[in-house]
Amino acid sequence: MGAKIKLGILGGGGDSLIGVLHRVASNMFDQYEIVGGVFNPVWEKNIGFAEQIGLPVSRIYKDFETLISEEVKLPENERMQVVSILTPNFLHFPMAKKLLENGFHIICEKPLTTSYEEALILKEIQELTKTVFAVTYTYTGYPMVRQMRKLVESDALGKIQKVDVQYYQGWINSIIHDPEKRASTWRLQPDKSGISCCIGDIGTHAFGMIEFVTGLQVSKVLSDLNYLYADNVMDIDGTVLIHCSNGAKGVIRASQIATGEENSIIVKIYGEKAGLKWEQENPNYLYMMEEGQAIKVLKPGNGYNSELSLDGTKLPPGHPEGIFDAMGNIYKGVARAIKGEPYDSGEFPTIMDGIRGMNFIEQTIASNADGNVWKSID
Amino acid sequence: MGAKIKLGILGGGGDSLIGVLHRVASNMFDQYEIVGGVFNPVWEKNIGFAEQIGLPVSRIYKDFETLISEEVKLPENERMQVVSILTPNFLHFPMAKKLLENGFHIICEKPLTTSYEEALILKEIQELTKTVFAVTYTYTGYPMVRQMRKLVESDALGKIQKVDVQYYQGWINSIIHDPEKRASTWRLQPDKSGISCCIGDIGTHAFGMIEFVTGLQVSKVLSDLNYLYADNVMDIDGTVLIHCSNGAKGVIRASQIATGEENSIIVKIYGEKAGLKWEQENPNYLYMMEEGQAIKVLKPGNGYNSELSLDGTKLPPGHPEGIFDAMGNIYKGVARAIKGEPYDSGEFPTIMDGIRGMNFIEQTIASNADGNVWKSID
Amino acid sequence: MGAKIKLGILGGGGDSLIGVLHRVASNMFDQYEIVGGVFNPVWEKNIGFAEQIGLPVSRIYKDFETLISEEVKLPENERMQVVSILTPNFLHFPMAKKLLENGFHIICEKPLTTSYEEALILKEIQELTKTVFAVTYTYTGYPMVRQMRKLVESDALGKIQKVDVQYYQGWINSIIHDPEKRASTWRLQPDKSGISCCIGDIGTHAFGMIEFVTGLQVSKVLSDLNYLYADNVMDIDGTVLIHCSNGAKGVIRASQIATGEENSIIVKIYGEKAGLKWEQENPNYLYMMEEGQAIKVLKPGNGYNSELSLDGTKLPPGHPEGIFDAMGNIYKGVARAIKGEPYDSGEFPTIMDGIRGMNFIEQTIASNADGNVWKSID
Amino acid sequence: MGAKIKLGILGGGGDSLIGVLHRVASNMFDQYEIVGGVFNPVWEKNIGFAEQIGLPVSRIYKDFETLISEEVKLPENERMQVVSILTPNFLHFPMAKKLLENGFHIICEKPLTTSYEEALILKEIQELTKTVFAVTYTYTGYPMVRQMRKLVESDALGKIQKVDVQYYQGWINSIIHDPEKRASTWRLQPDKSGISCCIGDIGTHAFGMIEFVTGLQVSKVLSDLNYLYADNVMDIDGTVLIHCSNGAKGVIRASQIATGEENSIIVKIYGEKAGLKWEQENPNYLYMMEEGQAIKVLKPGNGYNSELSLDGTKLPPGHPEGIFDAMGNIYKGVARAIKGEPYDSGEFPTIMDGIRGMNFIEQTIASNADGNVWKSID
Repeated sequence: MGAKIKLGILGGGGDSLIGVLHRVASNMFDQYEIVGGVFNPVWEKNIGFAEQIGLPVSRIYKDFETLISEEVKLPENERMQVVSILTPNFLHFPMAKKLLENGFHIICEKPLTTSYEEALILKEIQELTKTVFAVTYTYTGYPMVRQMRKLVESDALGKIQKVDVQYYQGWINSIIHDPEKRASTWRLQPDKSGISCCIGDIGTHAFGMIEFVTGLQVSKVLSDLNYLYADNVMDIDGTVLIHCSNGAKGVIRASQIATGEENSIIVKIYGEKAGLKWEQENPNYLYMMEEGQAIKVLKPGNGYNSELSLDGTKLPPGHPEGIFDAMGNIYKGVARAIKGEPYDSGEFPTIMDGIRGMNFIEQTIASNADGNVWKSID
Repeated sequence: MGAKIKLGILGGGGDSLIGVLHRVASNMFDQYEIVGGVFNPVWEKNIGFAEQIGLPVSRIYKDFETLISEEVKLPENERMQVVSILTPNFLHFPMAKKLLENGFHIICEKPLTTSYEEALILKEIQELTKTVFAVTYTYTGYPMVRQMRKLVESDALGKIQKVDVQYYQGWINSIIHDPEKRASTWRLQPDKSGISCCIGDIGTHAFGMIEFVTGLQVSKVLSDLNYLYADNVMDIDGTVLIHCSNGAKGVIRASQIATGEENSIIVKIYGEKAGLKWEQENPNYLYMMEEGQAIKVLKPGNGYNSELSLDGTKLPPGHPEGIFDAMGNIYKGVARAIKGEPYDSGEFPTIMDGIRGMNFIEQTIASNADGNVWKSID
Repeated sequence: MGAKIKLGILGGGGDSLIGVLHRVASNMFDQYEIVGGVFNPVWEKNIGFAEQIGLPVSRIYKDFETLISEEVKLPENERMQVVSILTPNFLHFPMAKKLLENGFHIICEKPLTTSYEEALILKEIQELTKTVFAVTYTYTGYPMVRQMRKLVESDALGKIQKVDVQYYQGWINSIIHDPEKRASTWRLQPDKSGISCCIGDIGTHAFGMIEFVTGLQVSKVLSDLNYLYADNVMDIDGTVLIHCSNGAKGVIRASQIATGEENSIIVKIYGEKAGLKWEQENPNYLYMMEEGQAIKVLKPGNGYNSELSLDGTKLPPGHPEGIFDAMGNIYKGVARAIKGEPYDSGEFPTIMDGIRGMNFIEQTIASNADGNVWKSID
Repeated sequence: MGAKIKLGILGGGGDSLIGVLHRVASNMFDQYEIVGGVFNPVWEKNIGFAEQIGLPVSRIYKDFETLISEEVKLPENERMQVVSILTPNFLHFPMAKKLLENGFHIICEKPLTTSYEEALILKEIQELTKTVFAVTYTYTGYPMVRQMRKLVESDALGKIQKVDVQYYQGWINSIIHDPEKRASTWRLQPDKSGISCCIGDIGTHAFGMIEFVTGLQVSKVLSDLNYLYADNVMDIDGTVLIHCSNGAKGVIRASQIATGEENSIIVKIYGEKAGLKWEQENPNYLYMMEEGQAIKVLKPGNGYNSELSLDGTKLPPGHPEGIFDAMGNIYKGVARAIKGEPYDSGEFPTIMDGIRGMNFIEQTIASNADGNVWKSID
């Protein structure tokens, strides 16, 4: 192949977990080389972190504007090709916009922006510049999530008639019942987190999962959200009734007050011929239920899986892979796109998935605010 | 103790599964003796079945009116004390009404009646006659369901803040997509099954489970139901948003088109301090999730369980009991009530639970019919 | 059919759990009527218990000899046909011997006798009298255990090449480490319990399970047993290497010091074409692993199961049955045999299975005593 | 910290899975930089692979002798510090020996060597040169395996009284029954694979797991091995009875003919106070069973875990990590050792663990060959 793809990183310094995740993932298939970035607005911390992770400091910049202006001066074969945006949400838009305008490919954490409107603007520029733009809905990178998508695509389920996705966490429980904590946690402040907490942070994953796995679009939502306290203006739990583009009905259930739950994503898809079940905390098991037959348990790496699924497994069956591997699979797909190699549309979520996610958040909040009524998602 | 309680049975003959369930359950704790009944409207089948199960035919009657008129003539110590009603739903009301009026105790299959109105009438008579009236929401008889109730009661969960109960089956899938079958299946005919299929048959179980386990009342519902075909007038799937009497929000999910699911009831209850999870198809495992602690798996028969739970286990830990044992536990509780012995209110569901179930069905159907709006449950 | 089979019971009175199990099981398929027995050697307790379970006292006898002498005087159509022996182990032999000699059918708890020699004597009489003789290896009555047997029989696994059965409990842990308790527990006294504790009580179940499921005979054993303390002469844990009649090798693992285990029987059978896994504490799930294919999960009541398995399920799929149902299935099979109806050899274990179990115990203890050497099982 | 540790790699080129595993793991905590190595004995492939993974070719050598002679010429701050040996087993010894003699640290795949004798020689040199020598028993790097070790160490289980470790695979099934395949597969040729197939390849993992988790030494073995065909001289399945240094008895079960099994390692450890269970294919769940209490399910990343366990988790609870993360944890520990930082002895297996593994293999094969008799492990 030759040289690795040159990757820059915005954010993700210090003890940022998302930083670890992206660094490891980018390295997983020998495709990327981290060449620089901006890890922290404070210069000492920025440089210090680069040294800590063994990166030469020559291409560590004081801010993203400088990164862009300096990198574009470099010869094309040295220049950063793609930039991962791991900063707080409100920075995604200005960073992505300017990077796109200067021809960089982008890997952006979700949510894509803080509003649907911003998201549409990015889309316009991305189309003009013909850049690769991935949004890291990480869970779509799991081999068995990919397998679900391909099973639906291959018509193994028949027409989808019911969808049900859960994303339950319990972490905000220890915050929400304490007046001081809930007044001071940034996740619960609209100016820092946008219009939604639970739906924006995790409900979007459930939404994205449905569209990824079924290939359908969610067309309508009706929500009932939970705030628990009058002085809390951010949703921390909610149930969203949905209708899909093919008429199928379903439900998205998201919670951050599901006490004791860690990161419990459960996907259930039922078609006329068969149903599928998958749980994120035990991601190497996929259950397929065909009418009148023994339930089938599919596991990664086996020959009966689709190519898309197998492409996301590095070792033989029985060697469990986890969330880092899921993100690694997404980076692998992005590499193919950047290099102009053929790839399956299931290899990474694009800016369109990010845009739909923003629309979902806004419509879900509106449905609840307007008294639990239906809202359309274009 | 002396003699066993004299039990009569209406319905449940031939190869009726519900008949087997009630017969075995009634025998489980040496409390009941089946003395007679009406197993079938056709006399030969009625008598034939009695002989087949080794019952003397002297107290097999041609119809329930005769049963009542003959039994009341018998001396009190020979007379039937309690009657189990296992007939098609529309017969529950006339049978129960007349039995109550003649002083018989009743064990009635759910749904209690075909309308909320009928249910209220029965309630009035039952209060006057001070009879014992059990409605067999069988799943409440499982030791670990009882343990959930007692854990909530003991405040082990703190204030309940979120409830989520699923009841998914897939059996109607093979019927609903076939125009002829869906036109001819009695479950899908309102004149035979009342106003609801899915919500009436299984949604009520989910509803009853919430009220049984949490001790809360569901106060409001908003539903989105699924009919799949324009020529089908009975719901076969649906999601119901709920609000509880303490303000907690939640969701009931019921389906008969969840392809490949058998009888998947999943109960999730989250309080401020801890959460609980239980699955009916694996009923001997209860998961308790306390914040920041290892998840606890509780199993029947262990000393750490409540008395109510332990009362429902016959063998030492590790000997799994099933649905027959759950029904047996309900019969055991009813026996205590009939004999005037003390019992826990969790030992069997009463007519009040049946009445609330009827109200739930009617309001859920109305919510959907009126365009997915909130309806109150008194 | 006419009248039920007349059943007598020896032992199982008071709060005996095994008594409950046999009473409920005998009632499960409307086949038996308990007509009398001897529940306790103390007359008041004997009679008192009969009254407590609602049994007329006319056929409660003071001892088993009287039961036999009185019952044989009754007209044939009133006489007890089959007797269940639920007494302490050392009584099995004299009771069974005399019952057989007087033409009664027998359902006997395991272990059959206290020695292989006694067992052979019973066999001889049973053959002469042509009586039905069942030994209640209860776990063989589970629908999915029956399904394993039939899958092996149908060659779905190919030639069996490896067997591994575990039976782990932890209950003796709280006794064995206390010098006083271990000196006073009857299970640990050879005069009361025979030559073995762990192997005799639960190892035999594992042994019987292998022979039941595979249709093979265990031909050789080499054991390493655990006594933990020098003053304890009874095995409380052990591993037994085995060779089967077809050359397959395997292992039986039994323990009563597996701290925290309840009743963990795990069966793993591997053939040239497929493997099977089943766990007793979760008995409604059977895992079938065919090379290169998705794992299959088989559940009771589904049409893909064998007739033998389906015959042991009373309700539709998704309604879990437990240990009482397993015993009920065995009683159902015995009823068929008594009535001279056709039945599958997998419906209940016979005296031959009991005899082989005794031989297994003796050879396993001898293997360990002689320094972990191979011993044959005829 | 400054610069990353300079890592060389021997073997693991082409589509070697073990190569991927080590490359990703070495990168996981920003501690290592791969600077060169020998990926393939064929020069074109060697260089080609280096280019493919984006490595400069200047320090790709034609063989390991050249690697050593060239690297030692480099200034100390540029020189390779540690070398990972991923070649076929018979090369481990000569490579490790010469590397040690020249002062390189070593990360070596298991088995350490092809004989116990070679292993002892390496040990001698390693002690003289005071180098860091890790043997990659990867499974010890899982957070919940580390937690087991710490729970035992903290006396949470009390005295260990029973151990049982399974390692079942089914992959050789498709080879062993085909005379041609079994004659031509290198794993079944003693000249290529040493004296053992199953025990050497996976039995050692089970052995190492016991010693790692319990802190005990296995002191005696008695084995029964399976060859299936007379013309096959390599064990493909076996059960090993063991005695531990504290007197505890137990069993190691290993198989490559457990049809349909993928990589099923199951660890069960029972102490006087509590038991532990863990399964490799579902590695983020650890079951702790304390007498008379609800079973506890421990999951990675939670505060109730030990520091050693938490050090091996990168994201918050509920984000499953897999086998790559386990290897990454081992590399992280080795980095600490190389840098002279403090580390826990549970962070990586050392040459001593490799040596004991070799001894275990030889004694287990001897036990079977000599007629299933006990053999000591020093």
